[in-house]
Amino acid sequence: MGLDHAAIKPHEQMAERFDGKLTAVNALIAERMASRHAPRIPQVTAHLVEAGGKRLRPMLTLAAADLSGYVGDHDVRLAATVEFIHTATLLHDDVVDESAQRRGRATANLLWDNKSSVLVGDYLFSRAFQLMVETGSLRVLDILANASATIAEGEVLQLTAARDLATTEDIYLQVVRGKTAALFSAATEVGGVIAAAPEVQTRALFDYGDALGIGFQIVDDLLDFRGDTAATGKNIGDDFRERKLTLPIIKAVAAADATERAFWQRTIEKGDQRDGDLEQAIALMHAHRTLDATQADALAWIARAKDALAPLPDHPVRQMLADLADYVVARVS
Amino acid sequence: MGLDHAAIKPHEQMAERFDGKLTAVNALIAERMASRHAPRIPQVTAHLVEAGGKRLRPMLTLAAADLSGYVGDHDVRLAATVEFIHTATLLHDDVVDESAQRRGRATANLLWDNKSSVLVGDYLFSRAFQLMVETGSLRVLDILANASATIAEGEVLQLTAARDLATTEDIYLQVVRGKTAALFSAATEVGGVIAAAPEVQTRALFDYGDALGIGFQIVDDLLDFRGDTAATGKNIGDDFRERKLTLPIIKAVAAADATERAFWQRTIEKGDQRDGDLEQAIALMHAHRTLDATQADALAWIARAKDALAPLPDHPVRQMLADLADYVVARVS
Repeated sequence: MGLDHAAIKPHEQMAERFDGKLTAVNALIAERMASRHAPRIPQVTAHLVEAGGKRLRPMLTLAAADLSGYVGDHDVRLAATVEFIHTATLLHDDVVDESAQRRGRATANLLWDNKSSVLVGDYLFSRAFQLMVETGSLRVLDILANASATIAEGEVLQLTAARDLATTEDIYLQVVRGKTAALFSAATEVGGVIAAAPEVQTRALFDYGDALGIGFQIVDDLLDFRGDTAATGKNIGDDFRERKLTLPIIKAVAAADATERAFWQRTIEKGDQRDGDLEQAIALMHAHRTLDATQADALAWIARAKDALAPLPDHPVRQMLADLADYVVARVS
Repeated sequence: MGLDHAAIKPHEQMAERFDGKLTAVNALIAERMASRHAPRIPQVTAHLVEAGGKRLRPMLTLAAADLSGYVGDHDVRLAATVEFIHTATLLHDDVVDESAQRRGRATANLLWDNKSSVLVGDYLFSRAFQLMVETGSLRVLDILANASATIAEGEVLQLTAARDLATTEDIYLQVVRGKTAALFSAATEVGGVIAAAPEVQTRALFDYGDALGIGFQIVDDLLDFRGDTAATGKNIGDDFRERKLTLPIIKAVAAADATERAFWQRTIEKGDQRDGDLEQAIALMHAHRTLDATQADALAWIARAKDALAPLPDHPVRQMLADLADYVVARVS
């Protein structure tokens, strides 16, 4: 690996390795997103699917298949499948509930699109389903059906746990498994399955994806309080304003005295937020060192992800997956 | 068939024949609807799934399997599958768009449930997907994946065609195939597929379900203008108030002179509806005999459904399916 590569981020290195496959994935996505009867579909999805995201999930599938010695093109189908499922969940996440309107955040345009978001998401999910059927692997279908159920269950759980100070770290973990890790682990596992990799390897690929997904989401939640807006594109405090019980807040609530608890009840449970509350919330997290503790949790999951790689063959992609895990957590280091 | 049976409606006769199977379907639905992590899920779905609807779609699957000589319990899994898909689409249809709010129809409670409706619908869809994977039949998965895509595409098409006077009878037919017929035809076809019925029979079962579904939806749209509210539970004119381009209106628009066209533009395209407009709309449909023409179309589809049954074996269930087709259209005769 030359000097030039040292400065290249892990996902960019992977994108370079899988350049041809990713081009095929993008072409397949464009082909299957099209609808003869309903031109609105590509309109709604274009900004999501074509925006040239990092294609992290599809790359995980391509990497797992490559590492497992796969030869064929089902990896491309499955990479497109996981991207469609991801995009469908994004669309469904966009659906606005009353609380969002009550806080005056939703625009008329957003609302008008509620129904489009739902139905186009359903369309993408159906397209994903068709793509996986084309692989002819019942095991792949089983994995992705189970992942889909975990995703949906996690989303509902997040909805019911929202604004509830009784939310525990266990519940948070279940939510995170649903909203992020289930698709990561399915993406890596199916890559091994289509390559007919030994059971110990498909299990290792699952474990890697699971731990990476959890670490990734914890970091994301941490960045909401600690991130550099310019670098991450996220606004500091969005989760606080949306009254989401993420790990740094759950830990702060657990450590709260009576006065602090009243603060969390007012701001998170009742949603009565005033100027200076975000600063106060962050000050409480610093006082109880919950941001550091959350970062330690993320690091532990990333370590688990890397440990999971041990049973996998010695292969350049294995190192890329390890580097990717480090990179995920480096965002907040 | 005894005298007592003569008074029994076809779907009740089928429910009697499939009593044991339907009990198993209901038990399976209750079992798979449950969520260890998210108790809101059964809460949201209970009123839909347990309300004891006619279970028309599950019965079509049971009937098709029985008629094809199927022995086993995959018919029960697939019957629950189609009911879950049906319920998921109902939940997603419930999502409110801005226009509904603008007209002041949506209550706060309805809105609060937007997000629940979406996510619980996704959960049911995933559960359906798991159930069909359990049948181990890639052909069944292919049929239901294609049906799901047709359903989603039809829903998006309906959204974009809404309030558009340029909507043709062809577009209406595509929408109806998506919103109703795709699941009917998949329900009957998979019943034949799991029984390993000859190709000509699975094709006949598909054709029957397709034509029955189209006839069923046309009758439903007709009842919106011609029904007896007490008998159907539908309010006359709901579709008109929601500015839906259903067949009786499409035919009336096609026959409209300049003054009538202005009326449709004002009431449907602009949504400016006043007292007496519904009566005027119905008067125009009578003037152009579009309700009669719509009924004739429904009768033609029902005749096609019955004709499709010809290649199927001589079996008591075949007559029940023919009677069911007649019953569907008898609702408006």
